[in-house]
Amino acid sequence: MRGLMMGRFQPFHLGHLDLVKQILDQCDEVIIAITSSQFNYLEKDPFTAGERIEMIHDSLKESEINLSRCFIVAIENQFNIATWSSFLKSALPHFDKVYSGNDYVKMLLADSSIDVITPKFLERSQYNASHIRQMIISDDNWQILVPEAVAKFLQKINGKKRLEIISKSDTKPTEH
Amino acid sequence: MRGLMMGRFQPFHLGHLDLVKQILDQCDEVIIAITSSQFNYLEKDPFTAGERIEMIHDSLKESEINLSRCFIVAIENQFNIATWSSFLKSALPHFDKVYSGNDYVKMLLADSSIDVITPKFLERSQYNASHIRQMIISDDNWQILVPEAVAKFLQKINGKKRLEIISKSDTKPTEH
Amino acid sequence: MRGLMMGRFQPFHLGHLDLVKQILDQCDEVIIAITSSQFNYLEKDPFTAGERIEMIHDSLKESEINLSRCFIVAIENQFNIATWSSFLKSALPHFDKVYSGNDYVKMLLADSSIDVITPKFLERSQYNASHIRQMIISDDNWQILVPEAVAKFLQKINGKKRLEIISKSDTKPTEH
Amino acid sequence: MRGLMMGRFQPFHLGHLDLVKQILDQCDEVIIAITSSQFNYLEKDPFTAGERIEMIHDSLKESEINLSRCFIVAIENQFNIATWSSFLKSALPHFDKVYSGNDYVKMLLADSSIDVITPKFLERSQYNASHIRQMIISDDNWQILVPEAVAKFLQKINGKKRLEIISKSDTKPTEH
Amino acid sequence: MRGLMMGRFQPFHLGHLDLVKQILDQCDEVIIAITSSQFNYLEKDPFTAGERIEMIHDSLKESEINLSRCFIVAIENQFNIATWSSFLKSALPHFDKVYSGNDYVKMLLADSSIDVITPKFLERSQYNASHIRQMIISDDNWQILVPEAVAKFLQKINGKKRLEIISKSDTKPTEH
Amino acid sequence: MRGLMMGRFQPFHLGHLDLVKQILDQCDEVIIAITSSQFNYLEKDPFTAGERIEMIHDSLKESEINLSRCFIVAIENQFNIATWSSFLKSALPHFDKVYSGNDYVKMLLADSSIDVITPKFLERSQYNASHIRQMIISDDNWQILVPEAVAKFLQKINGKKRLEIISKSDTKPTEH
Repeated sequence: MRGLMMGRFQPFHLGHLDLVKQILDQCDEVIIAITSSQFNYLEKDPFTAGERIEMIHDSLKESEINLSRCFIVAIENQFNIATWSSFLKSALPHFDKVYSGNDYVKMLLADSSIDVITPKFLERSQYNASHIRQMIISDDNWQILVPEAVAKFLQKINGKKRLEIISKSDTKPTEH
Repeated sequence: MRGLMMGRFQPFHLGHLDLVKQILDQCDEVIIAITSSQFNYLEKDPFTAGERIEMIHDSLKESEINLSRCFIVAIENQFNIATWSSFLKSALPHFDKVYSGNDYVKMLLADSSIDVITPKFLERSQYNASHIRQMIISDDNWQILVPEAVAKFLQKINGKKRLEIISKSDTKPTEH
Repeated sequence: MRGLMMGRFQPFHLGHLDLVKQILDQCDEVIIAITSSQFNYLEKDPFTAGERIEMIHDSLKESEINLSRCFIVAIENQFNIATWSSFLKSALPHFDKVYSGNDYVKMLLADSSIDVITPKFLERSQYNASHIRQMIISDDNWQILVPEAVAKFLQKINGKKRLEIISKSDTKPTEH
Repeated sequence: MRGLMMGRFQPFHLGHLDLVKQILDQCDEVIIAITSSQFNYLEKDPFTAGERIEMIHDSLKESEINLSRCFIVAIENQFNIATWSSFLKSALPHFDKVYSGNDYVKMLLADSSIDVITPKFLERSQYNASHIRQMIISDDNWQILVPEAVAKFLQKINGKKRLEIISKSDTKPTEH
Repeated sequence: MRGLMMGRFQPFHLGHLDLVKQILDQCDEVIIAITSSQFNYLEKDPFTAGERIEMIHDSLKESEINLSRCFIVAIENQFNIATWSSFLKSALPHFDKVYSGNDYVKMLLADSSIDVITPKFLERSQYNASHIRQMIISDDNWQILVPEAVAKFLQKINGKKRLEIISKSDTKPTEH
Repeated sequence: MRGLMMGRFQPFHLGHLDLVKQILDQCDEVIIAITSSQFNYLEKDPFTAGERIEMIHDSLKESEINLSRCFIVAIENQFNIATWSSFLKSALPHFDKVYSGNDYVKMLLADSSIDVITPKFLERSQYNASHIRQMIISDDNWQILVPEAVAKFLQKINGKKRLEIISKSDTKPTEH
């Protein structure tokens, strides 16, 4: 039995990690799909696919989660949304269940034979990546909301500076 | 003589049907071009190209319009807009006239040899797809604004639920 | 009950027309999907999507086929082939059966719930679009292999000259 | 020594021309890279790549700048921004320095070995392309802010009408 | 220290597994990058990205390789090859060395600061994915050339039938 | 009066330079359009757009051609070929004539109002870029076939080594 969870993970936080653990309690294996992998250095997608893979991998390892039970896969957003569940199947190892509280996701998976399970989420007003990015910029106490490995990684790549520059810039290279 | 009309048809309504009839009064044949065909399950583009083709086809048939005088063609939006009139010519059967009240469309066709004719539209505050989508969500009396075939079709695919979910969702898979 | 047939239709010939009739004998409606619609002015894809739509429409009309039972839809080739059956469903009106003798197509539809039916084809060595294109270039008696409407249309757009130029050219704008 | 400056140049104005001259004072050659070259007939990108090349070329010639010291190159915006500096190197002749006051640009070039120099800009509240487009629409005295060659060119293609139509239109062909 | 190896892995065989082990002898961690991830159901790329991830993951696990030292990442082929090394850096976790015997790869990485190391390969006439695909079709003794997990997986998805159909088909959906 | 010539210029040779001079004898200005600009490091397209721009610019300068009469513009190949002449108009400054001996090009421009003129070419068996690339690899006396500036440039970037590696490699990153 394999369970799927999805997110942009900008950055991966303790709410995400908690969900990984929930799934591993209920399934043999978890697939962590990183969406919008083609985007980076943007307000909502500051970190590259490679950086997000690294943050998640390091967090799982630090938590002593058995990596042989985990798949971390980056996938690009699709524009023909009606084919999205089919795209998921082509891009990911086989999965039996999707863990998501998102009605939009449920709708898109409704025609496939995939079960969608609504997990319990940690307090979402806090464990919220967009909120965490704001806290990083304002030097608020964001480190308690993410795995230590993520805090270290963001320090190493100077994530704060990147977020600051992006938030102040009016250069929006993907807009027109 | 062949006349062209274009729209997203999300959904096809009585204003659109009236325009089909106007064109068939003046021309031998009509081309109904469905634009932004690559998009679906989005706020402004909830229905797939296939669904839109089906709704239009069924509406014409129901109105006893001779389908051998009609072409229904779905076309993707282009990003290099300066080539748009040329793209239209490649994607569509030959056409002699375009029926449009849109100055932007007129500008883009200005360098081609195509005549643009401003048709009479039914009352646009009512016959307006975005307005109709709102009415569907709020169970307002939208059925009188669309062909019966469209009302039936939206019922069959549970269009109301789709519109509701999309409008409430903050998942915007094509945004970044 | 709606049946689907697919092809590049470069050009539409009597073998194709025969299949349309077979399907209309067995189903209420037929969808004629024109594949590789994004290509044109190439050796295997000389005619535009618009030209192909027009040739098919005219042929059906000439044969006194009831157009209200027919959908003619141009679709682009996909590069993520594993999602192809899902793409078909988004681009086309609902269909119940696919008429195809192609094992590759059958494989791609195997996971969907769609029936694939192997139709009877007219003699394929003759009714073969690539063969017909050769005959057009060499002024062989190709007109007997296509609907009269197609012969007229190709005459009107000077299809012979286009095929000749393409076949002699070593300009291959889509190759690299 | 070759210096690079970048912009959308919608349109090219005297602030841009001044920067060209600054760079030619400090370097042997200048590369003028026109960004978002794939867009046109849009609010922020009304003029085509070809029109922008022509305006810049004519302006340099009019100013008696030695064109053998200048490269004018149109480049498309990239969506994988992390590869942007690498893309610049593939699309442009070799360059040694980038002239830019933009922190976002500096960040994206930080990992490459390219020097970024902050030039002196003419008064930016005036010499601002978006402001100039507004002035053109309202027949304000915009001609004093652009090279004479640009004023003539915009007159010739009736740029005012294009800007007006785009600004009034709610057709946004690249939005969804 | 992290080492990178790349391949299409159609399928993953014992030569690939041997290289994983070599890298893990010399580095702390290995990144296994699956190239041409956007392709599937094609002669040279029959298996999807998801299937390839699953085969590799299962093989490593079966060999009792510590998965916390491994990254398995699928990446799309790029068309602007000059930006390829930059793309690799954005799509993958940081890496220090590339293991490759391919001069073309070495050339593309020459301008980056990345070391390229030529590994020892198992006998390449045997351990060769294209050869193995031929053996699968002809029921030759291919199982001894791949990890047991791969043999099981291909059995489960009936890989033989897929390879057969693709090899016999003249439908080439990505060609034109 | 502005004349257009097009080519891949892999590399720019004396036959190309001769054509530039012919056009400047007959027109006020010449546009040199570099096609397939998105490709590089491939057998038929080894040099990047930027490198090709630089080779052409340097050759014109060396020949004491007045650069204020020349536009050098790199353009991507298009896949919807029917829109190609329209794309040319959007990507290039206005042009009045095209200089080309290619019937395929003439066909694509036939519907536009652009004159196509067949120039005189230097002996094409010699002045042929693909032939020159072979000569570079085999150290044949290729330098006499290209402008001195091109010979110097290819020396500087070690073009010979690049061509050798590409020709020997069976890595074809854009094939599938």
